[in-house]
Amino acid sequence: MNDATGQPQQPAKIEFWFEFGSNYSYLSVMRIEQEARRHSVRIVWKPFLLGPIFRDLGMENSPFVLQKEKGAYVWQDMARQCRKYGLRWTKPTTFPRLGVLPLRVALLGVDKPWIGPFCGRVMELNFVLDQEMNQPEQIGPILTDLGLPATDLLNEAQSEPTKTRLREQTSLARRKGIFGAPTFFVGSEMFWGNDRLDDALVFASEHKIGVAPVC
Amino acid sequence: MNDATGQPQQPAKIEFWFEFGSNYSYLSVMRIEQEARRHSVRIVWKPFLLGPIFRDLGMENSPFVLQKEKGAYVWQDMARQCRKYGLRWTKPTTFPRLGVLPLRVALLGVDKPWIGPFCGRVMELNFVLDQEMNQPEQIGPILTDLGLPATDLLNEAQSEPTKTRLREQTSLARRKGIFGAPTFFVGSEMFWGNDRLDDALVFASEHKIGVAPVC
Repeated sequence: MNDATGQPQQPAKIEFWFEFGSNYSYLSVMRIEQEARRHSVRIVWKPFLLGPIFRDLGMENSPFVLQKEKGAYVWQDMARQCRKYGLRWTKPTTFPRLGVLPLRVALLGVDKPWIGPFCGRVMELNFVLDQEMNQPEQIGPILTDLGLPATDLLNEAQSEPTKTRLREQTSLARRKGIFGAPTFFVGSEMFWGNDRLDDALVFASEHKIGVAPVC
Repeated sequence: MNDATGQPQQPAKIEFWFEFGSNYSYLSVMRIEQEARRHSVRIVWKPFLLGPIFRDLGMENSPFVLQKEKGAYVWQDMARQCRKYGLRWTKPTTFPRLGVLPLRVALLGVDKPWIGPFCGRVMELNFVLDQEMNQPEQIGPILTDLGLPATDLLNEAQSEPTKTRLREQTSLARRKGIFGAPTFFVGSEMFWGNDRLDDALVFASEHKIGVAPVC
């Protein structure tokens, strides 16, 4: 389709920066595909590591661990939010869980149709089944279930180029001013938190803009 | 009205803990009366001081000042949120502004019909007109405009019993686990942030419960 100036019209886009260890990212991973479809917005999946960002901001752990009061609240809030969205929920016995391996796998799938289902399954491992998610024996079966070549993908995920890509994506997150997850970008407009997913999608569909490059 | 057990039915209640210096409290102050009416929920106004709570949690200032990245984001978010709710908005040149005097005045009005309009006017002083709000010459005209005896109320607000009441209310906030504003309580369920106002009201009207005492 062309716009009024005769230029091919770009579909509206939303950048979705997420982390498998992040409980509020869980809510967005489970909701974003359906919601984005409803607004005719294309998702640009951006897995990144939150730990180095927190450390760079002077925090040695998640704020939900460092701030006792906020931490206590978050689990009460998560139970209610999951009820509201109709999602299953188990408070993880380890928090935050390391998810470097699945983030590397996700990087390989950002343009593939399996990215949404894969991310959903990893999130459920952490926040529904209360299981670790950083080992090949935990991630492999998910890939196999999705009909994907698990061994090849796990090898590629653990190769140096993929490791470098995840480090670079995390540095980019830092340069974009990201301080938590999930974070959404529509053009240069940043939206923080699952609570802003709907606002971000409305903004994207109303402005019909893509995503600004940050170098 | 009586419930099924023949007991007089209590109206559903929401406790609204707020601070005039808090920008997200501004959003809730401007929205809560209309929204609470829509859900048939009674508001229990709870003005308190956020500064001592932050200090108690090891923060010497608002997190929006201490965390540069989050601070930069908050003003972008506020402009969009105000647009969404149809509220006027000016980024305050001083943040956070001291609002001890109007909080003390608000304490005198918690059961009065002028509490909502008064709080709205003080919030607009800070977040629309970008003016100080901690002196009698700033608060007096608001009281007069509302048809209230400004001199008497200002004197009572600055009396020792009212000062003590605000200190005690702030200690109570701390004991209830409050770590930011606005915070809502429905019974013992805590809801943090303007983003949870609607959830809290739905919860209150569905559960038809009041507010649990914390001593």
